[in-house]
Amino acid sequence: MPEARPLIALLTDFGEHDWFVASMKGVILSMNPNARVVDISHQIPSHQIDEAAYVLEACYRYFPEGTIYVCVVDPGVGSARRVILATTSRYNFLAPDNGLLSRVLQNERNVKIREIEHARYRLPSEGTTFDGRDLFAPVAALLANGEPASFFGPVINDPVKSLIWMPQQQGHTLVGRIDYVDRFGNLISNVTVKQMRDFQSTIGTSKIEIHIGAHVIGELVGSYSQGDYENLSALINSSGNLEIFLQEDNAARYLQAGVGEEVRLC
Amino acid sequence: MPEARPLIALLTDFGEHDWFVASMKGVILSMNPNARVVDISHQIPSHQIDEAAYVLEACYRYFPEGTIYVCVVDPGVGSARRVILATTSRYNFLAPDNGLLSRVLQNERNVKIREIEHARYRLPSEGTTFDGRDLFAPVAALLANGEPASFFGPVINDPVKSLIWMPQQQGHTLVGRIDYVDRFGNLISNVTVKQMRDFQSTIGTSKIEIHIGAHVIGELVGSYSQGDYENLSALINSSGNLEIFLQEDNAARYLQAGVGEEVRLC
Amino acid sequence: MPEARPLIALLTDFGEHDWFVASMKGVILSMNPNARVVDISHQIPSHQIDEAAYVLEACYRYFPEGTIYVCVVDPGVGSARRVILATTSRYNFLAPDNGLLSRVLQNERNVKIREIEHARYRLPSEGTTFDGRDLFAPVAALLANGEPASFFGPVINDPVKSLIWMPQQQGHTLVGRIDYVDRFGNLISNVTVKQMRDFQSTIGTSKIEIHIGAHVIGELVGSYSQGDYENLSALINSSGNLEIFLQEDNAARYLQAGVGEEVRLC
Repeated sequence: MPEARPLIALLTDFGEHDWFVASMKGVILSMNPNARVVDISHQIPSHQIDEAAYVLEACYRYFPEGTIYVCVVDPGVGSARRVILATTSRYNFLAPDNGLLSRVLQNERNVKIREIEHARYRLPSEGTTFDGRDLFAPVAALLANGEPASFFGPVINDPVKSLIWMPQQQGHTLVGRIDYVDRFGNLISNVTVKQMRDFQSTIGTSKIEIHIGAHVIGELVGSYSQGDYENLSALINSSGNLEIFLQEDNAARYLQAGVGEEVRLC
Repeated sequence: MPEARPLIALLTDFGEHDWFVASMKGVILSMNPNARVVDISHQIPSHQIDEAAYVLEACYRYFPEGTIYVCVVDPGVGSARRVILATTSRYNFLAPDNGLLSRVLQNERNVKIREIEHARYRLPSEGTTFDGRDLFAPVAALLANGEPASFFGPVINDPVKSLIWMPQQQGHTLVGRIDYVDRFGNLISNVTVKQMRDFQSTIGTSKIEIHIGAHVIGELVGSYSQGDYENLSALINSSGNLEIFLQEDNAARYLQAGVGEEVRLC
Repeated sequence: MPEARPLIALLTDFGEHDWFVASMKGVILSMNPNARVVDISHQIPSHQIDEAAYVLEACYRYFPEGTIYVCVVDPGVGSARRVILATTSRYNFLAPDNGLLSRVLQNERNVKIREIEHARYRLPSEGTTFDGRDLFAPVAALLANGEPASFFGPVINDPVKSLIWMPQQQGHTLVGRIDYVDRFGNLISNVTVKQMRDFQSTIGTSKIEIHIGAHVIGELVGSYSQGDYENLSALINSSGNLEIFLQEDNAARYLQAGVGEEVRLC
């Protein structure tokens, strides 16, 4: 079996209609013909940094060791905002320094973060609107060619971090929030199965109700197919989070709610 | 020329916004660095099993021998529904046992169908909502690594089959239906060119009219460019099916009709 | 490092919902297991040849030498329209002869254009609605296999060319137009930075105003982040074109304008 070729995973808000993603791939494959490029998503809504952070956290652990993540949701492109490279024992993450890597940095130990020295790696271009092509792609290709992370710039200790909402216990209530709405309209909360169990021990009962909007869900089910067609149901999803759904329907539309909606367990 | 690397083709209703498809690719490439992964479509509307079956039938014969199809439109995920592996002389098809493979099974002779033994191949995970990542992807990667189909579970003889509508002759009329609406709004019927010709011989004339809704189409044209800009036209498409279209416009919108609409030839 | 495998880049109006793109990939990979296939875009609006031409021009220079572009926005499919292969010193471009390659042909010197001899390369198929699969894909695969361009048909000198709008100086005004609206709603004009500078020398001032609709933009900014949140701003984008935007918002929606809108510099 030949040695695996380098893997570069792209996450952007560029959409798939224009030439933006293709240009990045063109640059990467020009500089590194052996690279494999995989799309995570290009449908992050414009400038929604937190949503990109969530999507990245949800899948990065499933990629092979050595994967280079290139994340470009970058309203500050062309400004003095930094571009950073975060290196863990398994992965490299390239992103603007705007909080996009917050969730990765929260999860990972022993991360080294470097500021990319723009000027050395930037492709010549008239404007400053497309760092995805002119900066992120060439840096990713060089990393994939084996250049060490230390090559790209000095270590920094003050990356921008976004607020990540954690569930709060208020008396006999655990207050969480919806962090993500997926394409099926499922409402994914920030409450993990572990936090739920800890809370249940604290209050001394396994019987808890889930309140969201004007709705009350009496107990968890084990799979979507056990859910209700008329009322909201809840389960622990495969990321280990409490998720609210409506059987074969769109819970977010039904509830007229989305990210930020409060979920109360009591 | 090096030996071709294994090819895995994905067909899901996961969309491209979230991390679902990326997670599957991450698992596959972690377990099999040589795999090539190709997307068929991830835009099957949520839970539309029949539409996925149609899309799969329309393209699977064009892929190279050895292709592994991974089809995940799976409203029953997490329930007791089976996951099956159908093996033909050329291909492997992995899908929930919910009718998604009905059209393939109708076309193919000497198919061996096996029930995947979930528990042995499932990745550890908290919930049961994401078999695409936790079950389908690892099984596909193992198949791509050369594990024989017999490895994955016992042969079954009772896969779930969806109703596939066949055109019916009623006196001097051949009654078909629209099976698919494509992105251009073209209405693809279940009437094949062979069935049309057989019908024409039966009724002893090559002159037939096509009725759909309140519209009558007098004769077939040979290409889209011969169609009418104001009225519906019809032709035999490149799958060999009778297709209704509106020249450079959207016939489905014009007709306010979609899948299930009756088409009458007389 | 192994020799790079052939690279085929696809640009179509097929969308990603149906089986059209997958069928093309299946044919290519069946005929050339070593090919790498990259998507440029499949979301060109149906039959919008000029938009495809724009997207192609915006990115093709960033791909590696040897890339084979397969462009299928083809309302004339099945008619007598020609299919052409344009060969430059670096690339091959395959497209219907409907103007799709106009911008490439305008940019490139020493291009040889050939008419593909349909009949020799077409896959057998009932209808004539899907040349993407039945003609473009096999020709691309053969090119990728190393067949010389001369193999595919005779040189022609009269390819169809679309009108490409160039800015016009009218007295002390440079009149341009919007050529493209990207996914962020940014309005990209046909005025290049070079044309702007030449115009500024001609009229002897570097102070110019940009007029679009009822709006006046007083001066260019250097990046999106320097733009205004309430009023339109303008900059030179990374393709070297004058671009109108609204900071972190959708300028096209704000202005209720799109392709063809006039831009006046004075």
